[in-house]
Amino acid sequence: MPKVSEEHKEQRIQQILLAASEVFKSKGYEQATLKDIVEEAGMSRGWIYLYFKDKVTIFLALIDYLDAQLEERIAALLKENKGSAHGVLISYLQETSQSIDHLEDSVVPAIYEFCTTGWREEQVREFFVNRYIRVTAIFIDVIGRGVEEGEFKPTQSVDEIVKYMISGLDGIMLHSLAFGSQQINAVQQVNQLTNQLMEMLSVNFNKIMEKNS
Amino acid sequence: MPKVSEEHKEQRIQQILLAASEVFKSKGYEQATLKDIVEEAGMSRGWIYLYFKDKVTIFLALIDYLDAQLEERIAALLKENKGSAHGVLISYLQETSQSIDHLEDSVVPAIYEFCTTGWREEQVREFFVNRYIRVTAIFIDVIGRGVEEGEFKPTQSVDEIVKYMISGLDGIMLHSLAFGSQQINAVQQVNQLTNQLMEMLSVNFNKIMEKNS
Repeated sequence: MPKVSEEHKEQRIQQILLAASEVFKSKGYEQATLKDIVEEAGMSRGWIYLYFKDKVTIFLALIDYLDAQLEERIAALLKENKGSAHGVLISYLQETSQSIDHLEDSVVPAIYEFCTTGWREEQVREFFVNRYIRVTAIFIDVIGRGVEEGEFKPTQSVDEIVKYMISGLDGIMLHSLAFGSQQINAVQQVNQLTNQLMEMLSVNFNKIMEKNS
Repeated sequence: MPKVSEEHKEQRIQQILLAASEVFKSKGYEQATLKDIVEEAGMSRGWIYLYFKDKVTIFLALIDYLDAQLEERIAALLKENKGSAHGVLISYLQETSQSIDHLEDSVVPAIYEFCTTGWREEQVREFFVNRYIRVTAIFIDVIGRGVEEGEFKPTQSVDEIVKYMISGLDGIMLHSLAFGSQQINAVQQVNQLTNQLMEMLSVNFNKIMEKNS
């Protein structure tokens, strides 16, 4: 296939995912229809069918796209923090903490909805397990770097620490959504989790100051 | 109203909630119908309408019933542990940890489903906020006792500690449901959370040994 056509294809897919993202943000998963996405994208239904066969396929592609963005964001944070894994984690947790107040304007609620309604289906479950492995791998990689460079000296497995971190964050986000971020003191909770993570990682601040100097 | 009739009413309601619980366990919230509940209860539709007007009403009554059971369970644990708040928390967390493997056979998935699909509706949100206040109050009361009796000397507010505990547990449970309890090391995660809670509470083990002796 010629290169231009590949680029066009990528552009169209991005356009569809962006439109889908808006629809899922405002309607959640169940209430959103393929028709809504077609209208939001301003393309003919035929164009969309060329790439996606139904709403589920678009939604799963959107999650993949968001996870790829997370990978890119973490890589960018690594640059911004001069390669410090500690800096990446702190920045990421702060960004998450700040985003919790605007959770309702994101695709996160639709993802929770999809996951709590869909876990009984084998295919959905398989997709989510793969996603879990992918997302944990991103953070295992960051923390692994920190261990190699002497920033962290964890007394337990990095795998366990990462799993604890992301379920902790999801718990705080789920509660923010259900009960309100003010009601649950979401920011305070993320700080608490951050402190505990740093303890689990036994941060070596001398090493980090060396890196930053 | 004569006493017998009140008792009968209570019995009928319990019977309906028990049937509803079975239906919500196996089908989740959205897929369950009032017809399923009528069939499971083995009563005529008319009897059920006497007490509940629709599926939502039954579901909310079921959650209330489960929360009342939690209150009773905590009161029972307090007796079993000779009034030790530390003992109650440890027992409760261990029980939760053991139940995570069987989460799929409980109403918990339906509750998550109801909450992630329903949070946009004002009434559902209000119900859940009240529920949050009720459930946190149960644990604030237990820990407050522990503080009074010198078992705990927390350096931060009990309210914050309880909020952190229940969102931590919900995160672990949500991840168990979505990704599998083995995959996420659920038991290890609950242990980790337990350790952190005990640190936040600054447990005075001498006092606890006194109590148990």
